[in-house]
Amino acid sequence: MGRVTARRRARHVTGDDTVTRPETLAVEEPLEIRVNGTPITVTMRTPGSDIELAQGFLLTEGVIARRDEVLTARYCRGSVDDVNTYNVLDVTLAPGVKPPDTDVTRNFYTTSSCGVCGKASLDAVRLSSRHCPGDDPATVAADTLTAMPEQLRSAQRVFASTGGLHGAALFAMDGTMLAVREDVGRHNAVDKVVGWALESGRIPLTGSVLLVSGRASFELTQKAVMAGVPVLAAVSAPSSLAVDLASQSGLTLVAFLRQHSMNVYTRPDRVVR
Amino acid sequence: MGRVTARRRARHVTGDDTVTRPETLAVEEPLEIRVNGTPITVTMRTPGSDIELAQGFLLTEGVIARRDEVLTARYCRGSVDDVNTYNVLDVTLAPGVKPPDTDVTRNFYTTSSCGVCGKASLDAVRLSSRHCPGDDPATVAADTLTAMPEQLRSAQRVFASTGGLHGAALFAMDGTMLAVREDVGRHNAVDKVVGWALESGRIPLTGSVLLVSGRASFELTQKAVMAGVPVLAAVSAPSSLAVDLASQSGLTLVAFLRQHSMNVYTRPDRVVR
Repeated sequence: MGRVTARRRARHVTGDDTVTRPETLAVEEPLEIRVNGTPITVTMRTPGSDIELAQGFLLTEGVIARRDEVLTARYCRGSVDDVNTYNVLDVTLAPGVKPPDTDVTRNFYTTSSCGVCGKASLDAVRLSSRHCPGDDPATVAADTLTAMPEQLRSAQRVFASTGGLHGAALFAMDGTMLAVREDVGRHNAVDKVVGWALESGRIPLTGSVLLVSGRASFELTQKAVMAGVPVLAAVSAPSSLAVDLASQSGLTLVAFLRQHSMNVYTRPDRVVR
Repeated sequence: MGRVTARRRARHVTGDDTVTRPETLAVEEPLEIRVNGTPITVTMRTPGSDIELAQGFLLTEGVIARRDEVLTARYCRGSVDDVNTYNVLDVTLAPGVKPPDTDVTRNFYTTSSCGVCGKASLDAVRLSSRHCPGDDPATVAADTLTAMPEQLRSAQRVFASTGGLHGAALFAMDGTMLAVREDVGRHNAVDKVVGWALESGRIPLTGSVLLVSGRASFELTQKAVMAGVPVLAAVSAPSSLAVDLASQSGLTLVAFLRQHSMNVYTRPDRVVR
């Protein structure tokens, strides 16, 4: 697409030195995702892999669970000037697949009686998940895990030039990197690799590790659970609700994954010598 | 509130050593923000400073522009069990203040004819901003700026124990730290300091620097513009659309702010020796 990076002039200040020079930046633009013609959400993303992003989003939100639940996914024209901005993507669902509720807050009420609380968030995932990873017998060697962050960094070509992109990657249990995607938004990078897996017929993602370059939030953990990933690994810290969701779902949650160490918060039986 | 951190057991793996120990985590829980009783959004946040968060969110979304446009802000009880989870906050607006549109996608269409694109996002901010920073004559010394990240780190007490929180801080132009807030969500940390400023009668935030611990996205830049901040400084990279919005708004955008260097992308006249 040629729209992943952009150049802008900046004044670089070092001590008493000042030089004005062009800098390479990660591109950020809105993507509107429509389902059957109805706008569902607008996400600020880095252009590229947009169809993967839209399908990964719909899968991790519980709208679809399999590839054959999507009929078509294509860019539509802009609303008035009839110009295609490549920023609006319409996904047509197969007959019988229920489109999502467009009210983000309503989903919270239909799943729990406690109002809004962490338990309600956990319940919402449990009730909508169709690929729960709890029974996956796959294991991964600790040495294989600790080598993954360096593999991701090597593959993040745009990050190297901009410093501005989050990365997400899928690995087989033997350490083979299957797919890597980058985005200004952490959740978008994950949706893109999940969408890649959907298009590759790999959902549920049994026997695989999802690695994220930043922290493990509830949202990213939810996406791993919805995709049926047995091991989620993060380079930085997890949140309390991410650990609770992993515990409930039988997901192995690894965080602070470094070259020589890691913390395994849940289901440590999947991490072996 | 005592709910900012939580303990969970984890298996810590270093080389051939394994030890199971309690780890301190940043708490993440949903907060539902209501306006005049109607749910507007649910954000995953770290509990604490919730009233600041809600008011900062409403200000940076363009719903309110001044403190007297809010009548009350208070926690409500849960929906069914009549238990107060302290996760639902209702903001009552003053008479005549228009509540927000609950359809997130609709806002994009009312402001631009190009469908969804970066220009539409810029237009949306321009049309809703009431505190544009363009005319602010304030300046800040480069040495004062480069000292700010260390001040923020020193003040981030919870990050030190969990590694899991983003920080946002407001500074006067002489380097005095005015307020600092932490959250699992970057946008929430910014909303909290903006909400603090609203409650302190400091909106618009003329003559101040907003520092964020991560990257400068469009969303965070929008929040700075809406609050009338003349200088936004980020420790990491900016996105293309963040630079474009700063340029349009007359905001000084500093990124890659390190101990001895920085990049100034827009309005460098505000950064002096």
